[in-house]
Amino acid sequence: MEEKVPLMGDQCQVDIEFTQKYRSQLPGVIDEIVESCTKERAIAHYDTIMIPSKESVIEILEELKDILFPGYFRQQEIHAFSLSYHIGNVVNRLFEKLAAQIARSIRHECRRLHNPCTHCLDRGQKEALDFLKKIPALRETLAGDVQAAYDGDPAAKSLDEIIFSYPCMLAIMVYRMAHEIHIQEVPLLPRIMTEYAHGAAGIDIHPGAKIGKYFFIDHGTGVVIGETAEIGDRVKIYQGVTLGALSFPTDFQGNLIRGVKRHPTIEDDVTIYSNATILGPTVIGARSVIGGNVWITQNVPPDTVVTIEQPHLHYKGCKNLLASLGPDLETKKNPA
Amino acid sequence: MEEKVPLMGDQCQVDIEFTQKYRSQLPGVIDEIVESCTKERAIAHYDTIMIPSKESVIEILEELKDILFPGYFRQQEIHAFSLSYHIGNVVNRLFEKLAAQIARSIRHECRRLHNPCTHCLDRGQKEALDFLKKIPALRETLAGDVQAAYDGDPAAKSLDEIIFSYPCMLAIMVYRMAHEIHIQEVPLLPRIMTEYAHGAAGIDIHPGAKIGKYFFIDHGTGVVIGETAEIGDRVKIYQGVTLGALSFPTDFQGNLIRGVKRHPTIEDDVTIYSNATILGPTVIGARSVIGGNVWITQNVPPDTVVTIEQPHLHYKGCKNLLASLGPDLETKKNPA
Amino acid sequence: MEEKVPLMGDQCQVDIEFTQKYRSQLPGVIDEIVESCTKERAIAHYDTIMIPSKESVIEILEELKDILFPGYFRQQEIHAFSLSYHIGNVVNRLFEKLAAQIARSIRHECRRLHNPCTHCLDRGQKEALDFLKKIPALRETLAGDVQAAYDGDPAAKSLDEIIFSYPCMLAIMVYRMAHEIHIQEVPLLPRIMTEYAHGAAGIDIHPGAKIGKYFFIDHGTGVVIGETAEIGDRVKIYQGVTLGALSFPTDFQGNLIRGVKRHPTIEDDVTIYSNATILGPTVIGARSVIGGNVWITQNVPPDTVVTIEQPHLHYKGCKNLLASLGPDLETKKNPA
Repeated sequence: MEEKVPLMGDQCQVDIEFTQKYRSQLPGVIDEIVESCTKERAIAHYDTIMIPSKESVIEILEELKDILFPGYFRQQEIHAFSLSYHIGNVVNRLFEKLAAQIARSIRHECRRLHNPCTHCLDRGQKEALDFLKKIPALRETLAGDVQAAYDGDPAAKSLDEIIFSYPCMLAIMVYRMAHEIHIQEVPLLPRIMTEYAHGAAGIDIHPGAKIGKYFFIDHGTGVVIGETAEIGDRVKIYQGVTLGALSFPTDFQGNLIRGVKRHPTIEDDVTIYSNATILGPTVIGARSVIGGNVWITQNVPPDTVVTIEQPHLHYKGCKNLLASLGPDLETKKNPA
Repeated sequence: MEEKVPLMGDQCQVDIEFTQKYRSQLPGVIDEIVESCTKERAIAHYDTIMIPSKESVIEILEELKDILFPGYFRQQEIHAFSLSYHIGNVVNRLFEKLAAQIARSIRHECRRLHNPCTHCLDRGQKEALDFLKKIPALRETLAGDVQAAYDGDPAAKSLDEIIFSYPCMLAIMVYRMAHEIHIQEVPLLPRIMTEYAHGAAGIDIHPGAKIGKYFFIDHGTGVVIGETAEIGDRVKIYQGVTLGALSFPTDFQGNLIRGVKRHPTIEDDVTIYSNATILGPTVIGARSVIGGNVWITQNVPPDTVVTIEQPHLHYKGCKNLLASLGPDLETKKNPA
Repeated sequence: MEEKVPLMGDQCQVDIEFTQKYRSQLPGVIDEIVESCTKERAIAHYDTIMIPSKESVIEILEELKDILFPGYFRQQEIHAFSLSYHIGNVVNRLFEKLAAQIARSIRHECRRLHNPCTHCLDRGQKEALDFLKKIPALRETLAGDVQAAYDGDPAAKSLDEIIFSYPCMLAIMVYRMAHEIHIQEVPLLPRIMTEYAHGAAGIDIHPGAKIGKYFFIDHGTGVVIGETAEIGDRVKIYQGVTLGALSFPTDFQGNLIRGVKRHPTIEDDVTIYSNATILGPTVIGARSVIGGNVWITQNVPPDTVVTIEQPHLHYKGCKNLLASLGPDLETKKNPA
C-alpha cells in the first residue's frame, strides 16, 4: 500500500489560480515591510552610497581563479598563442570590477566612521592595480601550496587533481587574495571573500591571519583560523582544527577591544591533527606535532610531540546494553 | 622532465567524434532506466501531483534575503524614492512563488497520508500571505541577531560585514523563516529550506527547534540543533556544537516514534563552546557556560560553569617518536 | 548617532570613472602574469590537450540527479506518457557530456605518465555507456539508502523529504556514481565529483572507498571517509566521524607510497556516533557500536559497545570564575 499512488480529485490537477481575496491584502503587507525598512534601518541599505555587492565579489573570485590557475575552471580551451589574449581579457575585466568594489568598500567605511570621503574613486583604481601586480608572486605561493598538498596526501594522484577538486585549495587561494587586499587596508571586501570560501569549503580563515608557504589543510571541514593567528612555513593542518581566541579583552566600559593579538602562533614545520583546539596567543614551537583532539592553551617548545592520554575505553557485549545505550540499537533489525 | 609536456599524436588533437558503435546501444539503456523508474517508484516522482521544486525554494530564499536585508545582496542600488517599488515588486513575486510551493507541499502531504486533498490552492495563498505579514517582526528579530554577532565577535568590524558575509546569518535567517512556516503547519517546505542552509553554511538547524532572540553562532561549521531543541534569549554557540538526541523511543512494533521531545533545552544567556555535545531532553540552566569538548546528558543548574578535566598531555621530543607516531613525520623534510 | 546616515559630498555620488593613470599600467601587469604562467607551469593548463572542466562535471551531476530521482530537482513536471522522452533526452545529453569528460580525464592521465595516448576517444564513449548501463542498479541501491535514512532519523517525515533536502543524500549519491567510474579505472573525474559533494555537503568520501547497502550519514558535516575504507551493509554514521589513516608508508626514498590499505574496515550493522575517530587499517566487528568522541586505532570484535570513560566534569558557580574562564563572560550583560 505504501507504494500505491492514490488518484487525485480534479481540484488537485489544475495549477494554482490566484484569487483576489488574498491578493488584495498585499499592498497593506508591502506598506508594513517598507515601514519596517525605515525602522530597522541598521539592516536595510538604501539611499546612501554604493556598497559592495556580494554577487560582484563572487564574480571577481571566479575571474581570479581563472588567471591564477588558467585552463582549469572554465570550459574554454587555452593555447599558447591565445594565452596572452585570454589573460589580458580577464585582467581588464578584473581591474574594473575590483576597482569598483574596492571604492565601494572604502566609502562604506568612511560613512561608518563619519569621515569625509575624498579619494575613494582614485583609491579604488590604485588598490586594484597594486593588487593585480602581486598576482605573479601569489601564483608562485599557490604553486607551493599545491605541491604541499601533493606531498602530504597519499590519496592525491596528481597536482591537477588537487587544483581541480580540493576544497582546501579554494579556501587557501581565497585567503591569500583576501589577505593581500587586507594588507592594503581595504575594509569589508576581504572578509566577504573569505566568508564566501568558508561557506563553500567549510574552512574559516580570517583575512587578517598570516600564513607562510607550503600550507596544506587536509579534508578541512570545520577548520577555524582566527584574525591574529600566525602560521609559519610547511605547516599542515587536518579537519576540525581550531586556532581560536581564549578570552576577549574589554575596555573600561566593557566593550570588546578589537584588533589585539588573541590567536596562536604556529612556527615552521608543525603538523596539527584532526579536531585539535589551540586557543589564545599561544606559541607552538617549530617542528612540533599536535595530536588529534588535543586542547592546548599553553606554549609548546620546538620539536615536541603533544598527545592526549587516551581516555579509558569501555568494551562490552551489545546484548546487555540495549536499554542503557539508546539510539536506535533497539530499532535496527540485526541479522544476528 | 616532470614539467615537460609531451607532444600528442594526431588522435589526441581532434575533438571527440561519436561513433554508432556505442550510440546505437543508448535506446536499450534508456528503456532499462525508464523501467527502473516504474520499479523503484519510491524515488521517482512523476504522474502524480505537483510537488515542491528545490530550484523554486532556493529562488524564494533569494527573494526573501532581498526584503529582509534590502540593498545587501543584489547588484542593484536602492534609493528612498524607489524603496517601496522595489519591496512591492519582490513581495508580489514572493507571494506567487510561495503560494505555489506551499500548495504543492500540502498536496504532497495529503497524498502521502492518503487524505483527500481539498483546499490546497486556497491554503497555499492563505499561508503565504500569513507568512508575509510576519516579515516586519522577523526583520526586528534578525536585527537583534546581527547585533548579537557584533557584540560577540571581536573580529567583526561593522554590522554590514556580518550581514554581508557571516554564514551563520544565512543559517539563522533561513531557520527563522522556515520555523514560521513550520508553525503554520506547512509540511516539507521548511525542511527543504533549512537543509539548503545546512549545505551552504555547514549549520544544521531543524525548523522545529525554538530559538529566542539575540542568537549568535560563531564560525558555526558542524553545528547541529535538533527538531525539539529549545533555546532561550542571548544564547551563543560555537562551531561543532551538537544539541542532539540521546535515544529514539520506539512503539510496540519497534518503529520510531516521531515528534516527542528528544533534544536539550538551553535557557537564557547560556554560552556553549566549540565541539560541546549536549544530548537528550536535558536542561542547561540560565547563564551557565558549557566548556569546549564537554559531553553532557544530565541537567545543569543555572549559573554553572561546566568544564572537562583536561586529559593529561604527553610532551615528548620528536626524534624518539618517529616510528610510533606515524603520519608523515617521516616524509617531511625537516630543516633541523 | 550610530543610526544616522551622514550626507555625502558630491565626489561620492558619481559612479567610478576610470582614469588613464592606472589603466595605462595594465599591459605591463598582464605581461607579467602571462610570463608567470609560463614559469609556474605546473598550475597553468594550456596548449596541451583537453582536460576535464569542473563546470562540465557539475552539469553532469545535475543531469544524473535528474535520472536517478526523476521529478525531484527540476521545476518541470513529469508524467507517465512523457517519462521516457524525459529520460531519453537526459541520457542522450549525459552520454555526450560524460564521454567527453572521460576522454579528457584519460588523456590527462596519459600525458602525466608520458604514455602514448591511443584509444581515449573510443574509451570515453565505451566507459560512458558502461556507466549508464549501471544506472538501474544504482537506483536500487540509492532507494535503499533513502529508506535507511528514513528508518534511522525520527525527524524524517517522508522519503521525499529525504530526497529533497538531506545533504547526506547528495554526498552518498555522488560517491556511488564516482565509485563506479573509479572502478572503471577512469582517472581524475571521480575525485572531481566527490570533492564537489564535499564542498556542497561538508561530507568527504573518497571515490575509492567501498560502501555497502543501506548506508546513512546523519547530519554529516565533517565526516571523512578515506580512500581505502571498507564499509558493510546497514552502517550508520553521525556528523564529524573520521575513518582516516594512521600513518603513511614511504618508500626507500622517503616518498609516499600511494594505494595501500590505510583506512578502517567497518563490518555490517555498525553504528558510529558523532565525532568518533577511527584510524588505520582497523577492523570494527559486525553489529558493534562506537560511542561519540571515541578515538580508536585497534580492532574491535563483533557485538561490542565501545564508549569512552567520561572525563570528569567540573561544575562551579559562574561568579568566581570570571577571570580564569575568559571568553566574553565579562562582556555579556548578564541579567543576574
